[in-house]
Amino acid sequence: MCKDGQKPAEAFSRNAGTSPSGSSVAEDLVRAFLSGSVQAAARIITVAENRDPAFFDLMKLIYPHTGKAYVVGITGASGTGKSTLTDAFAALLRERNFTVGIIAVDPSSPFAGGALLGDRIRMQRLSLDPGVFIRSTATRGHLGGLARTTNSIVKILDAFGKDFVIVETVGAGQDEVDIAGTADTTLLVLAPGLGDAIQNMKAGIMEIADIYVINMADREGVDRLFSQVKMRADQDFDLRKNAWKAPILLTAAIHNEGIVELVDAVESHRRFLMKNGRMQKLRREKTKSEILHLLKEEITEHMLDHFLGEGQFDELIDKVASRRKDPYTGVREIVRTILPGHA
Amino acid sequence: MCKDGQKPAEAFSRNAGTSPSGSSVAEDLVRAFLSGSVQAAARIITVAENRDPAFFDLMKLIYPHTGKAYVVGITGASGTGKSTLTDAFAALLRERNFTVGIIAVDPSSPFAGGALLGDRIRMQRLSLDPGVFIRSTATRGHLGGLARTTNSIVKILDAFGKDFVIVETVGAGQDEVDIAGTADTTLLVLAPGLGDAIQNMKAGIMEIADIYVINMADREGVDRLFSQVKMRADQDFDLRKNAWKAPILLTAAIHNEGIVELVDAVESHRRFLMKNGRMQKLRREKTKSEILHLLKEEITEHMLDHFLGEGQFDELIDKVASRRKDPYTGVREIVRTILPGHA
Repeated sequence: MCKDGQKPAEAFSRNAGTSPSGSSVAEDLVRAFLSGSVQAAARIITVAENRDPAFFDLMKLIYPHTGKAYVVGITGASGTGKSTLTDAFAALLRERNFTVGIIAVDPSSPFAGGALLGDRIRMQRLSLDPGVFIRSTATRGHLGGLARTTNSIVKILDAFGKDFVIVETVGAGQDEVDIAGTADTTLLVLAPGLGDAIQNMKAGIMEIADIYVINMADREGVDRLFSQVKMRADQDFDLRKNAWKAPILLTAAIHNEGIVELVDAVESHRRFLMKNGRMQKLRREKTKSEILHLLKEEITEHMLDHFLGEGQFDELIDKVASRRKDPYTGVREIVRTILPGHA
Repeated sequence: MCKDGQKPAEAFSRNAGTSPSGSSVAEDLVRAFLSGSVQAAARIITVAENRDPAFFDLMKLIYPHTGKAYVVGITGASGTGKSTLTDAFAALLRERNFTVGIIAVDPSSPFAGGALLGDRIRMQRLSLDPGVFIRSTATRGHLGGLARTTNSIVKILDAFGKDFVIVETVGAGQDEVDIAGTADTTLLVLAPGLGDAIQNMKAGIMEIADIYVINMADREGVDRLFSQVKMRADQDFDLRKNAWKAPILLTAAIHNEGIVELVDAVESHRRFLMKNGRMQKLRREKTKSEILHLLKEEITEHMLDHFLGEGQFDELIDKVASRRKDPYTGVREIVRTILPGHA
C-alpha cells in the first residue's frame, strides 16, 4: 500500500508466502499477538507506523477484537506535567487491576523543550509492569498523518486486551484535536505560571475537553487560572448546550494528589456516555470518520498508482508549471477521466 | 465545493449569475483585483480560506498571473522574535522599492502565548504603506488544512503583484514543514535563552532551513547557540550532500541589526536557485505536489457527494461499528465499486 514504507524483504508483505503450518505470516503474527506476545504487538505497531503493505491485512484480522478498551486522551501544552499525570493516572488504574496501554505521541515541535528523556526514564518504572504497554510514536505517514497512526495503535492495544488505552499528546494543535477524536474521554491539562495561556485559547481546543485538569495545583496562580478556566468552560457550556458539563479538577500529579478524583471523574464521564446510547453514537461517529479516512487513503493510493509517472500526469505538471494551463482546470479534467459518472 | 464553507447567499458562488456588463461576478472580482483593489484581494483571500464554491473558478482566473513573486518563509518557535524580524525584513525590502505581501499564519497552539496583539499593532506601521499587504490567517479547511490555505493566499498575493511574499509561521510542527514547501527560501529563526532548544531539534525541522537566523543576538547565550546550530548544520550538510550550505546569521531585529546581511543572504540563495535550473526544478516539484493535493481534495469531495447519506455507506458504518465487518475490507469493496479499473 505505502510506497515510502515498502521494504521488499519485509517478512509479512501482502504477497508473502505461507508458513510451514499452512497459515499466512500475517495470521501467525496475529495469533502470537492475540496470545499476548509483546514482541508481536510491537511488530504490528511498526507495520502501522510504516504503513507497510501488510497493514490492511493485519488490521483486518485484528479489528474483530477491538471495541473493548476505554480510550482516554491526555493533552495540553508542554510544561503542564502531562507525563507525570499520565504516570500517576496509569499507576492508579493498575492498583485497581486494570491493564493499561500508553501511547505517548512525541511533540511535533522540536522547540517544545521539556524532559522527554526524563519522562521516558520515569515511565520505565511502569514499563517493568507486564500489565502496562508503553509506546512512543511520532510517525506521520505520507497520506495519513499522526492522527491516523495513533488511531491504529489505539486499535492494536485495544485488541491486545488493555482495559484502558491512554493517548498522551504534547501541544495543542490540529493533531491534538484530531487525536482527541480517537478518545472516549479527553483531559485537557493546564498549569498555573505559564502566562495568560487561557486568554489565548481558541475555539476548537477548549471544546475537546471532557475534563479540565489544572495540574501543579500546589503552585501560585492556581486560583486565577481556575476562575479563567471556569469562566471559559461556563461560556462554552452555555453556548453549546451540551448535556455534559466538563468539570475542572485540581491535581498535583508529582505528589499523587487529586488522582483518585480524576479517575472518578473519568468514570463519571464514562457512565454519562453509557446513558441514552451516547457511547454508541460517539463510536458510530468515530467509525464513520475512520472509514472516510481509509477511503481517502485508498483512493489516493490507487490514483497515485495510476497517474504517477504516467505521461498524462507529467505533461499536466509541465503545462501548469509553465502557466500554459491552470491546475484547477487540469485537476477537474483528471477527475472527469477517473470518475466519469461523478464529475 | 466545500460544504462547510458554503453560504447560500454568497454573491459569487459557482452558479451565480452574470453582472449587468455580461461578465460573471467572479470575472468582475478578478478584474478589480488585477487592477489593484485591496478590497477585492481581501475578498478573494476569504473565498480561499472558506473554500467557498467560487474558489476553483477564481483561482483559475488568477493562476496565469502567478509565478513572479519571490516567496520567503520565516518560521521558528514563539519567543524568537519572528514578527519583529519579519517587520524589519519587510521594511528593508520596501526601502529598496520592492512591494511586499505578508501572511502571518496564526499559532495553532492556544498556549503559545506571545504578543500577538502587540505584533498586530506594530505591524500596522507597515500596513499604512500601500506597498505592503498584510494578512493573518489560521483557517483550516475540512479537507485542505492550513498549508493549503496558505499556499492559495501566497498565489493570490503573487498575482496581486507583490515582489516578495513573506509567510510567517509560529511554531515548528508539521504545518510549518508543509508551509515551508511553499517558500523559495526558508528562514529558521532561533534565539538564545529558550533552553536547550537545539538539542531537541528533530530531523524534518532543521532540514527546512535555507538560512538559520539567530535573532536576539545581543542576548546572553548566543555563542553557545551558534556552536550548537553550526554543529547541527555541518552534520546536516555532510549527511545530505547539498549543494547549498545554509548560512547562520546573527540579527537583533528589534535594533534593526543584521537585516541588510539577511536580505543579502536571501538574495544569495535566490541566485543559487537560479543557477543550473534549480529554481525550475523546485517550482516543478511544488506544482506537482499542489496538483496531487488538489486531486485528493476533488476526488474526496466527489466521493463524499456520492456516498454520504447513501444507504450503502450508512449500512457499512453500521456493520463496522457492530464489528460485523472490518473497515479495511469494507473500504476495499467501495474502492472496487468506484474505480473498477484500478482495484
